[in-house]
Amino acid sequence: MFKLVKQSKQSKARLGALKTAHGSINTPFFMPIATKAAVKSLTAEEVTDLGAQIILSNTYHNYLRPGVESIKKLGGLHKFMNTDLPILTDSGGYQVFSLSDLNKIKGDSVTFRSHLDGGANHILTPQKVIDIQVALGTDIMMVLDECIALPSSKKKVEQALIRTTRWAKLAKDYKTKLNKNSKIKKQLLFGIVQGGDNKALRLRSTKEITDLKFDGYAIGGLAVGEPVKTMYKVLDYTIPELPDNKPRYLMGVGYPENIIEAVKRGIDMFDCVIPTREARHGKLYISKGKFKYDTIQITRGKFKNDKSPINKTSLKNYSKAYLHHLFKSEDPLALRLATINNLEFYLKLMKSIREEIKKDKL
Amino acid sequence: MFKLVKQSKQSKARLGALKTAHGSINTPFFMPIATKAAVKSLTAEEVTDLGAQIILSNTYHNYLRPGVESIKKLGGLHKFMNTDLPILTDSGGYQVFSLSDLNKIKGDSVTFRSHLDGGANHILTPQKVIDIQVALGTDIMMVLDECIALPSSKKKVEQALIRTTRWAKLAKDYKTKLNKNSKIKKQLLFGIVQGGDNKALRLRSTKEITDLKFDGYAIGGLAVGEPVKTMYKVLDYTIPELPDNKPRYLMGVGYPENIIEAVKRGIDMFDCVIPTREARHGKLYISKGKFKYDTIQITRGKFKNDKSPINKTSLKNYSKAYLHHLFKSEDPLALRLATINNLEFYLKLMKSIREEIKKDKL
Repeated sequence: MFKLVKQSKQSKARLGALKTAHGSINTPFFMPIATKAAVKSLTAEEVTDLGAQIILSNTYHNYLRPGVESIKKLGGLHKFMNTDLPILTDSGGYQVFSLSDLNKIKGDSVTFRSHLDGGANHILTPQKVIDIQVALGTDIMMVLDECIALPSSKKKVEQALIRTTRWAKLAKDYKTKLNKNSKIKKQLLFGIVQGGDNKALRLRSTKEITDLKFDGYAIGGLAVGEPVKTMYKVLDYTIPELPDNKPRYLMGVGYPENIIEAVKRGIDMFDCVIPTREARHGKLYISKGKFKYDTIQITRGKFKNDKSPINKTSLKNYSKAYLHHLFKSEDPLALRLATINNLEFYLKLMKSIREEIKKDKL
Repeated sequence: MFKLVKQSKQSKARLGALKTAHGSINTPFFMPIATKAAVKSLTAEEVTDLGAQIILSNTYHNYLRPGVESIKKLGGLHKFMNTDLPILTDSGGYQVFSLSDLNKIKGDSVTFRSHLDGGANHILTPQKVIDIQVALGTDIMMVLDECIALPSSKKKVEQALIRTTRWAKLAKDYKTKLNKNSKIKKQLLFGIVQGGDNKALRLRSTKEITDLKFDGYAIGGLAVGEPVKTMYKVLDYTIPELPDNKPRYLMGVGYPENIIEAVKRGIDMFDCVIPTREARHGKLYISKGKFKYDTIQITRGKFKNDKSPINKTSLKNYSKAYLHHLFKSEDPLALRLATINNLEFYLKLMKSIREEIKKDKL
């Protein structure tokens, strides 16, 4: 499913092609986040037009609303959102541990009280998480893991690692059974490496997870509060232990410079709320040439009379002053134009990264 | 500037062409409302694509924010909003009387405290309202009038009428002076007939305003609380007193059936918040064949699993269930898709009206 196309001569950066049920994706790539089955304020058509190759959506949110049965009735997540792009869904584990009021692990199931529907209790298991993603019809499914914040005690990190491996095995075995269905077989399943910032635990987790033979490997439990240098250090010793012939996904990262550094270390896939969330708060990413950029806070008074275009491409006909005004007057169009700007910036950054790797310049 | 193209044989409905500095508009037409220099959630390009021939924007709101000086610096309202469509701006009078905390008329100026900028005091005069609209660069300017709610005492209606006529004369005289500037000369100026629901006062206002020779005539002070039958009655005796060779604009109207009834009585221009405001509250207009329609409240539970498309044209790829979900998850995309649906409905209604008049079927 993954083809390594080229290894850079400058770094561990690499080009690849990841084949999914909805087409092939050039790596390295960035996934815009459609938490609740929409990249907030944009249609899926617009996200495609901006150059996205794949969209990430959240299992937890879709599970709670509109609900798996609804999405199934409506023909799956692709049809629901009106997209032919591949979709990756996370496992929901992160949200269960970070968003729900109460979460209790008992054996191999986690009970949580949702932040919606009046706080009803729900139970997730590694198998149920697969069932949900099968029903959503996503191209890349993630296993249920336990992701903990850093810093954490070694003991806590180890406990989460052990549970993550056990759940990964349950998920993998269950998926293997379901693979009798040829449609489900085409849905890829990725494992997630945990282990915090402890080298021995990271290496142990990497070994245990890769032994289970997933279609790709995510490095989880980073960008969860640790210094960025720690993150790079973890990547430096973890990535060499991942197989070359599988895609590597660094979850929840990050700023443009973090993405570039991770690509140089051999990461192929990224997702992050930064471009879209910051857009909604009026923070815009402005390209300043290859791999250089500025950010501006468009709500600041100095943009009130700024005639210059928001960018020179998708928004060349709209001035910074107009976007400033739309934020001040709280027009939903503000969020949309800002989101378009930032997503375009991130997607073009990934394109530049791929071009530079091709030329052995990264 | 206005050419009467055809008079229906079935009614007083008529086809016309209104020439503006930004092109000719086929009458009867409907103006989508861009209160704060944007049709909420849509770009001007989208509004054009939906079939709008002209946009209405609000003098009062643009005056307060971003401010006339800003818009002037930025090249005028068309450039600010990024549209080549003609723009009509109201006079701000209605907002001064309905939105501002305090309004006090002294001689020919009205002082008001804005609902923004910490409640600063502002003064408008008939001349200043022209200056503002000149600075905005609008194609059709409206005179400052006094619009009162109904029911009102005859005395109050008469006082408003007298003031409206005096202000109309001041506005017209001032505009005539400014017409030395050939660019300003191309900006049309419309008078507004008042007189409440009193026949004698309406006829008096019509006579006084038409004597001043404006480029077009609006019927104001309707759709302000009176029964719809009263509105039709006022139209029945007012419209015959308006000149045939000038466009007639019924301000702030209305539901589709009100528009059709007013067209039959000889009205050429409409504006109304209904399609856009109701969209933002989840009320959708659904065509059921020529001049027939239904409305649905998309937030209702029965649409949760409704696979059918929102409409068969602009939103054929998005299900009612998806729009229901977007409203429930408070995604700004909800407002946008609903607004697209309703504006398209209204703009197509106007197109059907024009086609039916052409065939003498209305």
